[in-house]
Amino acid sequence: MELYSFFRSSAAYRVRIGLNLKRIPYKTHPVNLTKNGGENRKLTYLVVNPQGKVPALALDDGRVLLQSMAILEYLDETVPDPPFLPRDPFERAQVRSVANIIACDIHPLNNLAVQNRIRAEFGADEAGLERWCQHWIAEGFRAIESLIEGEVYCFGDQPTLADILLIPQVFNARRVKADLSPFPKIVAVDKRTRELDAFAKAHPMVQPDTPPELASPRPKV
Amino acid sequence: MELYSFFRSSAAYRVRIGLNLKRIPYKTHPVNLTKNGGENRKLTYLVVNPQGKVPALALDDGRVLLQSMAILEYLDETVPDPPFLPRDPFERAQVRSVANIIACDIHPLNNLAVQNRIRAEFGADEAGLERWCQHWIAEGFRAIESLIEGEVYCFGDQPTLADILLIPQVFNARRVKADLSPFPKIVAVDKRTRELDAFAKAHPMVQPDTPPELASPRPKV
Repeated sequence: MELYSFFRSSAAYRVRIGLNLKRIPYKTHPVNLTKNGGENRKLTYLVVNPQGKVPALALDDGRVLLQSMAILEYLDETVPDPPFLPRDPFERAQVRSVANIIACDIHPLNNLAVQNRIRAEFGADEAGLERWCQHWIAEGFRAIESLIEGEVYCFGDQPTLADILLIPQVFNARRVKADLSPFPKIVAVDKRTRELDAFAKAHPMVQPDTPPELASPRPKV
Repeated sequence: MELYSFFRSSAAYRVRIGLNLKRIPYKTHPVNLTKNGGENRKLTYLVVNPQGKVPALALDDGRVLLQSMAILEYLDETVPDPPFLPRDPFERAQVRSVANIIACDIHPLNNLAVQNRIRAEFGADEAGLERWCQHWIAEGFRAIESLIEGEVYCFGDQPTLADILLIPQVFNARRVKADLSPFPKIVAVDKRTRELDAFAKAHPMVQPDTPPELASPRPKV
């Protein structure tokens, strides 16, 4: 498989974790979202993904999947082991709820295109955008902190779709200096989960397209 | 089952469609998002849904599900007929991609809480907010128009999760006067799909909490 990815994109980070957990080897196609107005807006990429976003996953037969959540569900349906979701339908919904709080209510509000648009349309400055991101992270994390078990991972003793979404969102939260002190369960799950090889290898600082000045041989856990 | 719903919420609209398609009877608990700073922020509702959002679905045993996408997947897993997703994993991913473009890349940017926040933080006026909504709708719909088949429904001749998400988003698009003329497939799918009883009965203008001055005996198709 071939993953169209940007080192810092948290949606791509999710799919990197998913591929690693399922032990699916893949090749990374870097798509730089910040260079020259975004390589993702170029025609050469739009033929791969008409939405012009990362990630996109090209299967071995050349067909392409879009949207990180759809890709993760596809991986789970086609490579069942280890499962991303529990077996019980109610427990599956609990895991998906936490994943969707991140995918729908936090991440979309903090992504690069949205911040650029707020800056251009409403004249927001960097401090205002940082507060904006912090606000949605705090709102979403408050709900997640009350929903997860957090004794080992978000739910139970195996990482699920909830952890696959949470860890990249915590990385983003630290970038925008969000206060994580009200969320001890989230912080503990993040620390434990990043120790797993599948998560560590997916970290933004160890990707083929990580700028050398940012790259670390091994992310701090 | 009992659905915590607001007539105009497009996430609640999705779940109403889903329940109707599966022929699951349910009782509506209206939660007014606009009255007195939002009934959804009151403690009486936060004990139901700690995230303070609609929809929430209380099962017959009292357990509560959150997040419209997680609820729809739950309904599809527990009541298989009619299916919300095709059988083939790649086709399932295609349907979920379109659903997620709406759930992750359009709707979160246009919802009430987000518009309120942009107004408060960045001083946006109504015209600016309308342009903001129109922008994200146009971006997302452009991708969706190129991804769907649209000969009958979004994919194939049965409504799927893609249609369940699309129809409420088209309703929202019309509210903010988005230009739909570049999207003939979306407009045609919307028209055909709203003719189905399950969709017509879920329409915001025919809910128990629809304000009488807005209510229509039957939504225009």
